[in-house]
Amino acid sequence: MGAAHYGFAHAEGGVTAPAGFLAAGVSAGLKKSGRRDVCVLAAGRLCPAAAVFTTSATAAPPVLLSREHIAGGMLRAVVVNAGNANACTGEPGLTAARAMADVAASALGCEPSDVAVCSTGVIGVPLPVDLVTAGIAEAVDLLDSTRGEDAAEAIMTTDTFVKQVALSVEANGRTFTVGGMAKGSGMIKPDMATMLAFITTDAPLSSRACDDVLRSAVARSFNRITVDSDTSTNDTCILMASGAEGGPTLEPGSAGYEAVEAAVLEVATALAKMVVRDGEGATKFVTITVTGAADEVDAERAAFAVADSPLVKTALFGEDANWGRVAMAVGKSGARLDPARLRIVFAGILTCENGTAVAFDETEAALALAATDIVVEADLGAGDAEATVWTCDFSYDYVKINGDYRT
Amino acid sequence: MGAAHYGFAHAEGGVTAPAGFLAAGVSAGLKKSGRRDVCVLAAGRLCPAAAVFTTSATAAPPVLLSREHIAGGMLRAVVVNAGNANACTGEPGLTAARAMADVAASALGCEPSDVAVCSTGVIGVPLPVDLVTAGIAEAVDLLDSTRGEDAAEAIMTTDTFVKQVALSVEANGRTFTVGGMAKGSGMIKPDMATMLAFITTDAPLSSRACDDVLRSAVARSFNRITVDSDTSTNDTCILMASGAEGGPTLEPGSAGYEAVEAAVLEVATALAKMVVRDGEGATKFVTITVTGAADEVDAERAAFAVADSPLVKTALFGEDANWGRVAMAVGKSGARLDPARLRIVFAGILTCENGTAVAFDETEAALALAATDIVVEADLGAGDAEATVWTCDFSYDYVKINGDYRT
Repeated sequence: MGAAHYGFAHAEGGVTAPAGFLAAGVSAGLKKSGRRDVCVLAAGRLCPAAAVFTTSATAAPPVLLSREHIAGGMLRAVVVNAGNANACTGEPGLTAARAMADVAASALGCEPSDVAVCSTGVIGVPLPVDLVTAGIAEAVDLLDSTRGEDAAEAIMTTDTFVKQVALSVEANGRTFTVGGMAKGSGMIKPDMATMLAFITTDAPLSSRACDDVLRSAVARSFNRITVDSDTSTNDTCILMASGAEGGPTLEPGSAGYEAVEAAVLEVATALAKMVVRDGEGATKFVTITVTGAADEVDAERAAFAVADSPLVKTALFGEDANWGRVAMAVGKSGARLDPARLRIVFAGILTCENGTAVAFDETEAALALAATDIVVEADLGAGDAEATVWTCDFSYDYVKINGDYRT
Repeated sequence: MGAAHYGFAHAEGGVTAPAGFLAAGVSAGLKKSGRRDVCVLAAGRLCPAAAVFTTSATAAPPVLLSREHIAGGMLRAVVVNAGNANACTGEPGLTAARAMADVAASALGCEPSDVAVCSTGVIGVPLPVDLVTAGIAEAVDLLDSTRGEDAAEAIMTTDTFVKQVALSVEANGRTFTVGGMAKGSGMIKPDMATMLAFITTDAPLSSRACDDVLRSAVARSFNRITVDSDTSTNDTCILMASGAEGGPTLEPGSAGYEAVEAAVLEVATALAKMVVRDGEGATKFVTITVTGAADEVDAERAAFAVADSPLVKTALFGEDANWGRVAMAVGKSGARLDPARLRIVFAGILTCENGTAVAFDETEAALALAATDIVVEADLGAGDAEATVWTCDFSYDYVKINGDYRT
C-alpha cells in the first residue's frame, strides 16, 4: 500500500480535474449568509460508482435514498445541499430527498435512481424543498468542468476553508487522474457535524472495483480520523469513475488498478486530514501512531482510545507532554499490551520506556509542543501491527462553538 | 431491586458508621497543601471482603498487589495514599506497594496479604515510600471509630468536597448498617482521575456474598457514571463486612441478605452520584435514562453514547435543548432502535416523537435548562429494557483544569 513510490503528480482543482466530470454550486437561499449551498456533480454519462454511508441507526432520509440508488453500482450525478441535514424528518424527509433526485434526473435526462442525494446542516427541521430543487435546476444549467471549486464551496457548513485536492498517477504508459472534495467537521446551528466526501476519477473501473477501492481507502483515511468521537446521521462518501481516460477497464491486480487504488487512498487521506485540520476549535493537528500491537484491529483501537480521550486532547491544547494520559488511554482501550514494554514518544520526546517514566527536558518539551502539528507514538510491545489516526485537540473554542451558539 | 420499599434510615458518618471498623487519616507530606494524604481503614479482625478493580491493561502496582491480596476473600485493612498514583512505576512501584502493606500488617498484627493497597495521584513518579509508610504507621496509632471523615479527607485529590454516606436497614428484626467513602473524579497534576470507593457493613456476609453484592452494586452505580469517558489505572472499589451486627451469616435469598444488598447498592449509588457532581468543571448533574431498548446491554450502550458525547455535553453546558445530538448519539451507539418510534424528552420537554421534531416553547426550554440537575430521556422504541447513567457537562473549566495546569 506504500503510496510513496507512485510519484503522484499534483493536479489543479478537485472533483472536475478528472476528465468526464462537470460541477456547479449555487446559492439557493438555505444559508443565511447567502453563500453557495446547493451543488451538482455530474458525469457526462452513467458511470460506475460506489458509496459508503454512516452506520448510524438514525441515518437521515437522503442516506436511506442514496443507499437504494447506489445499489446498482452506477450513478450519473450527485446532488448536495448544505444548511439543512434533512435528518429526523420522517416520511416527508424521504419525499423531499426523492424530489431532489427527481429534479436532477429530469434536467440531466437520466433516471432518479441514477442520482445520489446528500444533505448537511440542521437536524429535525423540514427541508425547504422548493428552494433546494430550484437550486438544483439552476446548478444543472451551470454545469462546467471549471466549477469544481464552486461545488466544494456549496457543501461547506462551518468549514473555514474549501477542501479539495487532485492528483494524477502513471502506470504502464497510461495516466489516471483522481480528484475529490469534502466538508466537515464544522458544526451547524443547532446541530451536528456531517462528513461528506466525493471522489472522482477518469480511470475505467467497474462498479465492483469502485466499491473495493473506495472501501479500502475509506478504512484507512476517513475511518482513521476523529474530531470528537461523534458520528453524524448524514456521513457519506462517494466514488465515481467516468472511464474518460479511454483505455480498457482496469483489472484488479494490474499495475493500473493498483496505481488508481493508491491514488484514491492518497486523495481520501488528504481530504480526511483537511477535515481534521478544520476541526471545531482545533489548534493542533495531531497524528497518533500505535505500533507493536498484536494485530491491526488492536492498533486502531488503541490509537482511537488516545485520539478520542478528552484528557489527552485537553493536554494537547495545554501543550503538556502528559504521557500518563496516553498510558491510561491505551490501557483502557482493550488492546493487548505488555505494560513492561510500553513505550511512549510524545511530540518526538521519549517520555516512557519499558512502562516507566523517562526524564526529559521540560524546555525541549515546551518547544516541541508549541508546534501546530504534533505526533504521539505509543508502542504496545505486543506484536508488529500498527495504525495511524489523525485528530485535533479540545480547546475552549470547541466548548464555545458547541455550547454557546445561542448567546 | 427497587430500593424504595426498604425505608433506609440515614446514619451519621461514613466507613466507620457500621460497627467493627476504625479509621484514621493523616498528613504524610505528599500533598503540597499539607492536607491529609494517607489513611487506614481497618476492621477489628480479619473479615470477609471483596474488591473490583480497573480493567485497564496499564493497571498500577497497588492494583496488581491488591488483586493478589483479595484473592482469599478476606481483609483486615485497607491503606490508601493520595498525591501519587504509583502507576507506570514498574518493579520499584510494586516493591513500594508491598512496603505499604507490610508496615500496616506489622502495626496491626496481621499478614501483609490481609491488607489492600490503593494509591491515587500523579502517574509515573516514584512513590516517596518512606513518607507513606511513616504516615501509615501514624494512622494505625490513631485508628478510631470517630475518624472516618479524616480518612475520607485523606483520599481526596482535587475533589472539592468529602464524599461519605451511611445508612441502616432493618430486616426480620435485625438492623444492618452500611457506610462508604469515595474520591474522584478530580484530576491531580499532572495526570489523571482515579475513582476509589470503600464500603463497609456490620452485616455478617461470607466472602462469596461480599463479592456478589459488590459486583452487583458496582454494575449499577460506579459502572453507570462517566465524567469524561476515561478510565484510570488505579480505580478500585472494596467492600468489607465486619459481621459485628452479631447474628448468623446472611444466606443469599434471605430477607436480611436482600436488605443488605439493596443498602450496599444505595450507598454505592449515592457515592457514585457524588463523584459525578464533583466532576471536573461540572456545572450540571445529568441523568440519562434510555427506555424502550431491546435489552439492558443496548440500553446501557445507548445511555453511555449520549453521556460520553462531547456534543451533548457541551450542549448541556450551553443550556441548549439540542435533542438532535441525542438522536445522533443513540444512532451511533450500536443499540437497536426504531427510528420511526424514537422519542426524546430533554429536561422534561418533549422534543422528538416518532423520530421527528416536536415544536416546543423556547422560553420554557431555557428555564428548564437553567437548572443544575437535568434529565435527558430517550426511548428507542425497540423493546422494554432500560438503563440510567449519570454524567456531567463539559465546560470551559474542564478544558482549563485539564489543559492549563502548567500556566
